[in-house]
Amino acid sequence: MSLQDRGRRRYTSGVLTLSDKGARGEREDTSGVMLRELLRAEGFEPAAYEIIADRRELIVRTLVAWVDEKGIDLIITTGGTGVSPTDVTPEATLEVIDRQVPGIAEAMRQASLEKTVNAMLSRGVAGIRGQSLIINLPGSRKAARENIEVVLPVLQHALYKLQGGPADCGGSGMAGVPPGR
Amino acid sequence: MSLQDRGRRRYTSGVLTLSDKGARGEREDTSGVMLRELLRAEGFEPAAYEIIADRRELIVRTLVAWVDEKGIDLIITTGGTGVSPTDVTPEATLEVIDRQVPGIAEAMRQASLEKTVNAMLSRGVAGIRGQSLIINLPGSRKAARENIEVVLPVLQHALYKLQGGPADCGGSGMAGVPPGR
Amino acid sequence: MSLQDRGRRRYTSGVLTLSDKGARGEREDTSGVMLRELLRAEGFEPAAYEIIADRRELIVRTLVAWVDEKGIDLIITTGGTGVSPTDVTPEATLEVIDRQVPGIAEAMRQASLEKTVNAMLSRGVAGIRGQSLIINLPGSRKAARENIEVVLPVLQHALYKLQGGPADCGGSGMAGVPPGR
Repeated sequence: MSLQDRGRRRYTSGVLTLSDKGARGEREDTSGVMLRELLRAEGFEPAAYEIIADRRELIVRTLVAWVDEKGIDLIITTGGTGVSPTDVTPEATLEVIDRQVPGIAEAMRQASLEKTVNAMLSRGVAGIRGQSLIINLPGSRKAARENIEVVLPVLQHALYKLQGGPADCGGSGMAGVPPGR
Repeated sequence: MSLQDRGRRRYTSGVLTLSDKGARGEREDTSGVMLRELLRAEGFEPAAYEIIADRRELIVRTLVAWVDEKGIDLIITTGGTGVSPTDVTPEATLEVIDRQVPGIAEAMRQASLEKTVNAMLSRGVAGIRGQSLIINLPGSRKAARENIEVVLPVLQHALYKLQGGPADCGGSGMAGVPPGR
Repeated sequence: MSLQDRGRRRYTSGVLTLSDKGARGEREDTSGVMLRELLRAEGFEPAAYEIIADRRELIVRTLVAWVDEKGIDLIITTGGTGVSPTDVTPEATLEVIDRQVPGIAEAMRQASLEKTVNAMLSRGVAGIRGQSLIINLPGSRKAARENIEVVLPVLQHALYKLQGGPADCGGSGMAGVPPGR
């Protein structure tokens, strides 16, 4: 693979929808589909998409498999970030990440808070596992869209850096080469 | 209990004041009393109120008893959130909660920061233990009042959801039924 | 030592620069030097300054020595707060602090976010070990300067309080006396 080819490498993305009803086929996953297409339009290659129930160990297992086996660069979850007893996406995510990126969650909540006070109940986290970035979004299509738009401007840069891109990447716009692949 | 009665159930609240001087009777607890009355006016039934010393294990024991034995829905602490050596309310709270609700603390600090730079030294946390919500407020009457006002608009909704209220509660305004009571 | 002398005590400060290139002498540490001089101008006595590589255990060891052996009041780190694989300053800091001060990091990111979206990737934390305050700043001179200016107004008060200054310090402007020295 030439340097140029590697420089043009598209990052892969996975969308994981957390929804008991969705997993039973009782609810259409408009949020997950929206996110997949939005990420595709932003240049991310859809590599995984699944709807699973709000069970912590199942979320952990899926996230680990998507990072460690499939090597997906960017994983966006939607759902399970609220305060309901079944909302355990943040806890599952905290369990699998090596390093938190608190500013991503803070920025999303800060932006949402200008629209609705209930934004302060959104418990989503963001972090890094190996060379992948995992970000929790709320389950509602509207909130998920508002939140992803807050982070879209930093995603390419974040992945480039977390996969070992040199410090002085400035405006080069080169996509990074994930080591170990 | 009829569905209607349950729908009208008032949530209970407890106010826990952390103050070495207050516990020794050397200082009047204007902050705790203000919070109790403010919560009563907001529809919460006062179920507990205590002034205890800034001792971590004592705070832990009290919070656990109020949730696990008394089943108090909303616990507001005031005091012990600063950077003094005796300020350990956040650490005690983190020890007893199952799930953090970081957006509550962020929103309170963000609002306070517009009034005073010292707001960034307020280390309060918020989180869920079982079916109860615990929120740390600063000890000063003025700061406690400013902070509680930031979260008041979400408290009923938060309790409804964290006690298992269905997802589509929208504008129903129904109070939740705490399971297991 | 008279009360007056104690009241006039200047706090000591240490600047720890995290940079693989800087540690090898391949890059000038403009950020660390700027911070040292800025803190000196703010009344902090420079007591330590070092450039070390981005290695977690080395950062931990240095922070512990600066607090436990040198008794430095304020430690500012610069570098290693991003998302690169080598950026582990926050993790090392979390390992050595007893109590987090999340509002400091939140306030710095919030201010930076108004200038650049990449601020949300800054993972710095702040916290207390014993009677010392440790704050992570980004590595770039510009970002480090912007961030330190956000917290400068609270540093003297924070140190006074975390070293056991009485609650009603109000406008006395007295510097605290670190116990155990």
